[in-house]
Amino acid sequence: MAEKSLTPLFNLNDHKREPKFTNGFYQKDIISVTQFSHDDLEYIFSRTDEMLEMSRQWGTCGLLKDYTLACVFYEPSTRTSSSFIAAMERLGGKVIPITEGIQYSSVSKGETLIDTIFTLEQYCDVIVLRHPDIGSSALAAKYAHVPIINAGDGAGEHPTQALLDLYTIKRELGKVDGLKVAMVGDLRYGRTVHSLTKLLSQYDVSLRFVSPDTLRLPLDLMNNLIDNGINVRETNKVADVIQNADVLYVTRIQKERFNDLAQYEEVKNFFEITPELMEEAKEKMIVMHPLPRVGEIHYKVDRDPRAAYFRQVQNGMYIRMALLASVLGQA
Amino acid sequence: MAEKSLTPLFNLNDHKREPKFTNGFYQKDIISVTQFSHDDLEYIFSRTDEMLEMSRQWGTCGLLKDYTLACVFYEPSTRTSSSFIAAMERLGGKVIPITEGIQYSSVSKGETLIDTIFTLEQYCDVIVLRHPDIGSSALAAKYAHVPIINAGDGAGEHPTQALLDLYTIKRELGKVDGLKVAMVGDLRYGRTVHSLTKLLSQYDVSLRFVSPDTLRLPLDLMNNLIDNGINVRETNKVADVIQNADVLYVTRIQKERFNDLAQYEEVKNFFEITPELMEEAKEKMIVMHPLPRVGEIHYKVDRDPRAAYFRQVQNGMYIRMALLASVLGQA
Amino acid sequence: MAEKSLTPLFNLNDHKREPKFTNGFYQKDIISVTQFSHDDLEYIFSRTDEMLEMSRQWGTCGLLKDYTLACVFYEPSTRTSSSFIAAMERLGGKVIPITEGIQYSSVSKGETLIDTIFTLEQYCDVIVLRHPDIGSSALAAKYAHVPIINAGDGAGEHPTQALLDLYTIKRELGKVDGLKVAMVGDLRYGRTVHSLTKLLSQYDVSLRFVSPDTLRLPLDLMNNLIDNGINVRETNKVADVIQNADVLYVTRIQKERFNDLAQYEEVKNFFEITPELMEEAKEKMIVMHPLPRVGEIHYKVDRDPRAAYFRQVQNGMYIRMALLASVLGQA
Repeated sequence: MAEKSLTPLFNLNDHKREPKFTNGFYQKDIISVTQFSHDDLEYIFSRTDEMLEMSRQWGTCGLLKDYTLACVFYEPSTRTSSSFIAAMERLGGKVIPITEGIQYSSVSKGETLIDTIFTLEQYCDVIVLRHPDIGSSALAAKYAHVPIINAGDGAGEHPTQALLDLYTIKRELGKVDGLKVAMVGDLRYGRTVHSLTKLLSQYDVSLRFVSPDTLRLPLDLMNNLIDNGINVRETNKVADVIQNADVLYVTRIQKERFNDLAQYEEVKNFFEITPELMEEAKEKMIVMHPLPRVGEIHYKVDRDPRAAYFRQVQNGMYIRMALLASVLGQA
Repeated sequence: MAEKSLTPLFNLNDHKREPKFTNGFYQKDIISVTQFSHDDLEYIFSRTDEMLEMSRQWGTCGLLKDYTLACVFYEPSTRTSSSFIAAMERLGGKVIPITEGIQYSSVSKGETLIDTIFTLEQYCDVIVLRHPDIGSSALAAKYAHVPIINAGDGAGEHPTQALLDLYTIKRELGKVDGLKVAMVGDLRYGRTVHSLTKLLSQYDVSLRFVSPDTLRLPLDLMNNLIDNGINVRETNKVADVIQNADVLYVTRIQKERFNDLAQYEEVKNFFEITPELMEEAKEKMIVMHPLPRVGEIHYKVDRDPRAAYFRQVQNGMYIRMALLASVLGQA
Repeated sequence: MAEKSLTPLFNLNDHKREPKFTNGFYQKDIISVTQFSHDDLEYIFSRTDEMLEMSRQWGTCGLLKDYTLACVFYEPSTRTSSSFIAAMERLGGKVIPITEGIQYSSVSKGETLIDTIFTLEQYCDVIVLRHPDIGSSALAAKYAHVPIINAGDGAGEHPTQALLDLYTIKRELGKVDGLKVAMVGDLRYGRTVHSLTKLLSQYDVSLRFVSPDTLRLPLDLMNNLIDNGINVRETNKVADVIQNADVLYVTRIQKERFNDLAQYEEVKNFFEITPELMEEAKEKMIVMHPLPRVGEIHYKVDRDPRAAYFRQVQNGMYIRMALLASVLGQA
């Protein structure tokens, strides 16, 4: 085997992988909604608009063709992992999908999260991390040498969900300032409500909170809103808010929170969004939901053009495309 | 962060993703073998020929580079999911593989199949669906806004398997009309036998059915064949058909159907295709099997050039390439 | 549907997929370290250097864009499967990831490994195989029509790990001949130690083995080294080797080997590599570990530039890129 050819495989003078944009998000981690200034939001949203237009016209492109994403999910979340994978692939990027089995593999041998991150970052340019423990993404980001994008850290944050929620409001209604946003459902435990509320407090909005008494918005969040001068009001009935709401943000009431099932059944019925209820709503408004739903919105509402929840899903992919391209210096 | 660049990322005048072919299969669902006319079959098979030639010469191409497939498997089927993934990737397309974990994710939160489809279609241009329930693909297709390709719905249909079976017969023997096709094994429960039989009834073939008495072809299928004027005959012995068969389509007899194991063992031995048996077969004929096999075909038969079952696997990839390209308007 | 267009989809005169290099590794299986001559190693390592440079400058390339890899893991190993997937994707190749579920799919229906290989090779140009049984890769390679790369066969071989270990030594220290390599930890059961030792015996090295008495290097390996004229010496203390070692190759001591936990605790402490211990080491030396670690190396050592274990992980990807490209005739 001695006489093997050793012609160089690559002409490395050819081109070089370089950031096109080094301001703003380049090499930054995306950990929490609290890291986004008003300007940051506007910047990401205009990039997201471009991703949406590109996707509709071309389907895919080669913007991130030189980059690799490791998609690391310590718990399955088909919706979120699919969205990130689709986002990266539409930009021509490579994906290492670690969406199953990681808990049976390195982890079962006693490896720490940090060592797993130190290992996987050797293969890629950016890591999307889903982990059941609060603070895990921040911890990973502290040590990692590539940007970490938080795809949910247990009861903690899920910033890309909040960004896609806010983007959907802006995209659908043309603005955020001046809107009346009603949040409906489990406001106590609902992570998406908490994060979106924080983002909305950067805008001039009115917030209405509709929940059973046992599932009201936590005190500290409510006080923060009041301190920020946000117009807020709480109620138990969707009927109280449906007529004026520009946005009806509906969330699932989690059955497992209730000890008394009868109480759950009663509460559940308060909150079903039906075609009849939609008749009372404004002509130009939207219904949103972070999904999955289990009965909070009647299926007949799907045909209503104001039902924005599946367009919201699609926007999630565009938001993730914008974030991936931004942290890699390509947007 | 205010002074971030906002150079447009894309020149959207560049090109536009458009169907090249809008006749026939464009944006159609592939749900059942019964939807294919004789002309449809010939059309798909000539596209499949092209896919085969392209793959052998180039390996891959960029025909579907602007398109994304979501491969949604509610039950694992390595053989089928790998075939679809390979098919899409060989055409340069993007794949979102949801081949594991979906049952532990959205589904466990109570999401319906339709909502899952409504969600996943936001990310992709076509969905391949495998689901344990009969009729699930038809249901998904009724609501989905992208084409659905049925990759098996429980005891229902698995149309791409039947298409690849028929294509293999045509490719290997140069024609379908005039052939004698013998089906061997579990003809009662075998989904592949039922679907292939339906497709073959569009051609001028003779069919021979070889099974134990307890596993004969269902009455309605048999009557349909007779009504269509197909020459049919049933027997218990492979020996009765081996000399004249152009195609010997062997299927697995599922042990779990038998209460009396001794009866299974006896029946099983009737059906082993051995090199000795192959000596009685025609020189130009083929042995097929939908695989996996567990003893119906002796390993020594693999070396016989008439053993077509692994070429049959490869043809499955080409059939799927042709179908994917066709429903996306690129073939 | 009769009037469907039948414009040819492809101009097959365009180009043809062909090997650029047919000497050496083209279409060969990678099963065992024992198959590599000194020249082979040097050849693969110079290709690996090129892969490393390409990756750092370009990120990805299109060298294997016409080729498909099936990554078949009968047991999960996130580290290894991710490395192979990243390797193939960086070279522009397609990947069929079968890293989960195969045991619940074809296998549960009673399919043999060989039939699974015969099936999957229909879709791809090369197979990476991880399987719990010793000899499974050699068995697969005996029958497969595409190259098989062994990614670990139980207690058997894991040749790409040994190659990346040796490459790391050469890359970090500029040579292998003349080095003093100390192996620390479980030398009895540690597969990586055994394989690396075999490779090192082709070079002019001194080997030091540091282990508890119960975990010493197996007799046959030790005798082989002695027969090859390798300078060897065994000890129980890292302190005995730390001052002269050019390479400190640390392995995990597997708790489950010990019946007496107290004995394990005692042994474990002998082997922790700490910053204090590193002060005694040479200025130019490296610490390696096949990972995962569970306490053998203190986290503070990570910041020491001599800590090479995560660079070692990255080198694994480059080694796999070089092997994939070589067996496909592209390097």
